[in-house]
Amino acid sequence: MRNSSHLEKLVCSKCGKEFSPDEPQTICEKCNAPLLPIYDLESVKNALSKEDLKGRRADMWRYRELLPIKDERNIVSLGEGFTPVLKLEKLGEKLGIKNLYIKDDGLIPTGTFKARGLAMAVSKAKELGLKKLAMPTAGNAGAALAAYAAKAGIEAYVVMPEDAPLTCKLECYIFGARVYLVRGLISDAGRIVSEGKRKFGWFDVSTMKEPYRVEGKKTMGLEIAEQFNWEVPDVILYPTGGGTGIIGMWKAFNELKELGWIDEKMPRMISVQSEGCAPIVKAFKEKKKESEFWEDAKTIAAGIRVPKAFADFLILRVLYESGGGAVAVSDKEILEASKELAREGVFVCPEGAATLAGLKQVVEEGDIDKDEKILLYNTGSGIKYTEVYSKKPQIGVTAYYLH
Amino acid sequence: MRNSSHLEKLVCSKCGKEFSPDEPQTICEKCNAPLLPIYDLESVKNALSKEDLKGRRADMWRYRELLPIKDERNIVSLGEGFTPVLKLEKLGEKLGIKNLYIKDDGLIPTGTFKARGLAMAVSKAKELGLKKLAMPTAGNAGAALAAYAAKAGIEAYVVMPEDAPLTCKLECYIFGARVYLVRGLISDAGRIVSEGKRKFGWFDVSTMKEPYRVEGKKTMGLEIAEQFNWEVPDVILYPTGGGTGIIGMWKAFNELKELGWIDEKMPRMISVQSEGCAPIVKAFKEKKKESEFWEDAKTIAAGIRVPKAFADFLILRVLYESGGGAVAVSDKEILEASKELAREGVFVCPEGAATLAGLKQVVEEGDIDKDEKILLYNTGSGIKYTEVYSKKPQIGVTAYYLH
Ligand SMILES: Cc1ncc(COP(=O)(O)O)c(C=O)c1O
Ligand SMILES: Cc1ncc(COP(=O)(O)O)c(C=O)c1O
Ligand SMILES: [Zn+2]
Ligand SMILES: [Zn+2]
Repeated sequence: MRNSSHLEKLVCSKCGKEFSPDEPQTICEKCNAPLLPIYDLESVKNALSKEDLKGRRADMWRYRELLPIKDERNIVSLGEGFTPVLKLEKLGEKLGIKNLYIKDDGLIPTGTFKARGLAMAVSKAKELGLKKLAMPTAGNAGAALAAYAAKAGIEAYVVMPEDAPLTCKLECYIFGARVYLVRGLISDAGRIVSEGKRKFGWFDVSTMKEPYRVEGKKTMGLEIAEQFNWEVPDVILYPTGGGTGIIGMWKAFNELKELGWIDEKMPRMISVQSEGCAPIVKAFKEKKKESEFWEDAKTIAAGIRVPKAFADFLILRVLYESGGGAVAVSDKEILEASKELAREGVFVCPEGAATLAGLKQVVEEGDIDKDEKILLYNTGSGIKYTEVYSKKPQIGVTAYYLH
Repeated sequence: MRNSSHLEKLVCSKCGKEFSPDEPQTICEKCNAPLLPIYDLESVKNALSKEDLKGRRADMWRYRELLPIKDERNIVSLGEGFTPVLKLEKLGEKLGIKNLYIKDDGLIPTGTFKARGLAMAVSKAKELGLKKLAMPTAGNAGAALAAYAAKAGIEAYVVMPEDAPLTCKLECYIFGARVYLVRGLISDAGRIVSEGKRKFGWFDVSTMKEPYRVEGKKTMGLEIAEQFNWEVPDVILYPTGGGTGIIGMWKAFNELKELGWIDEKMPRMISVQSEGCAPIVKAFKEKKKESEFWEDAKTIAAGIRVPKAFADFLILRVLYESGGGAVAVSDKEILEASKELAREGVFVCPEGAATLAGLKQVVEEGDIDKDEKILLYNTGSGIKYTEVYSKKPQIGVTAYYLH
């Protein structure tokens, strides 16, 4: 069957107003809030069982009933998803945690989890006949947009800080995107995209301003549940920038609970940010429902250098609902953590390393039981960050020359 | 069952002498030739069916019966293998080939197919109790050794040209390997490893001088067969350096044929090399059984800058037996091809790009039927090669600055 999606409608995450998924949608203008896709889960119960998944393709499209693409011919895929979950034996022992895991989204097209969201957004754009996609980006999302747009034959316009990682710029260029570099942050890039929307008819696929990227991120949660044999971890630590990742995972767990595939016990979701840009952590500590713009944001973890997330209230809602938390870590701690993870064979991006640094804090504060199942989410490959990691004094390496 | 391997023995690829797989082995000293693992395929026929594979882990260890690790607890895994096969629609149309595919080993730990061989070699080293592994490398294999050795808690000694890709050096450092940089080529690095063997008791895991890396590479062929639903491609183009890849794949197809899982029609294997280092192409054109040392080897595709492969006679045997061939391409053609593949959404390494450049030659020479199923093997991610790809005039890009 070509149409296996059980997508029913889009609803505003604030006022609940319904929107049709059969035409291009952005946000609820009235509330200035994201739209979220809603599925007919009762019908999914009849259409799909856990067993059915066994022989399916080893990528995120194995969950097609719970994804929004109607005609499977519109799927634009580069083999994204179903990334490995690895046990961290040595680190677990060091931290006194019996069951410590990492999910490694370094093994995905363009080297970061952003591929999931953009594979979905571009597939849906193809389905809806959109021709010019644009976004402001810290770097990785732009690279992913460029890749999937190239595959789909759709035009991509990417606006990013000029100090974004070299690899991301290079990817955008070689994938054939139109690249604009700005002397500023992702928030400045956002303003340029707004202008391009009005002037050139760009369709804006910014984080949470387009309703489907989050559905791509949702597959992270679906995979976690399946890979842990439908017994989800007790705690998930996630590097949080714009928030699609944590919102998407939480959406996955809720849908799976409604399907009866996982039981009532849900993971505590913990947002990890950098001390140099921690608006969510600040808001969480102050028990606020929304965050404030973070001035002079600065961190080596480019992906979480987001001064104000459009969907901040949804991120915070996940943290409160799940009984989770939010912690800020220093760049120094991030670099230290990246070394420790490398000694387990995983070369993570700084954002991924932040989750280990965050875990140490949480453990210190006594918020984790040693018998709990803990998952660090590595959002990308360290290979993309040569500028960050080749500052030798920071990682403390020596080269031996032989003549 | 913990021991599911059907490994029987090792045999010399020249004289056929048998060696025990229960202790560390290197080469057949008498012949100065590689040893190859042999399995009891009759017993595999009873133990394993194609159907059994369906629910198995989505990595290269799904084929454990055909792999040499005896005790599964010795498997050192970072989630390697079962990488995607993608159809290249636009390029296929351009070249007039209906069924053109690429297998993307960019989506693997450390970003290149080298992970397969080293996952296997390190697992076997763990099984055999080896403590100090060493290798000369063009870069990627060293990075992979460093990663798996870190995971296994084994010492790694890596010797590489000082102009190896920055990413590879960085990976070795951060994974905690002992890194030696040489002013020379991989052949010079090889001499240093020989010295270290004698002086420090290093165990040499050089390409084909250790019997198990090739078994990791074999999984490329096993995956291809399974992913093409046991109807193997007509032609496979492969960037050839030391040769484990092409030898491993050919070994896979032969074992599958003996199992009766694929029929008699085998792929024609085509080695692609760079014009600046093409010893195999030269030997093939001259119908020789062995290659000569290539002086002043030079190419941007570091992985295939191998002046003389230890197992050259095995590579050539594969090309002759399979009715395949060998082509040399220029660095300019490689860069051009990398751009074309990027427009299909895949950012390949220069070695991977070489296969497309090679395909164009083969098509021009009329050696491919338009209805045939053609597979390009991309051995790694372009992300690892920022130095190569950021030479802007070569890839012809422009940045637009907005103030
Ligand atoms: C590597 C990496 N990790 C994490 C993030 C944060 O993403 P999210 O929008 O899911 O919070 C980003 C965003 O750019 C990123 O690139
Ligand atoms: C990216 C890449 N491709 C291809 C090769 C050639 O490998 P093989 O030994 O299989 O011929 C190498 C070897 O270093 C490599 O790094
Ligand atoms: Zn609303
Ligand atoms: Zn011999």
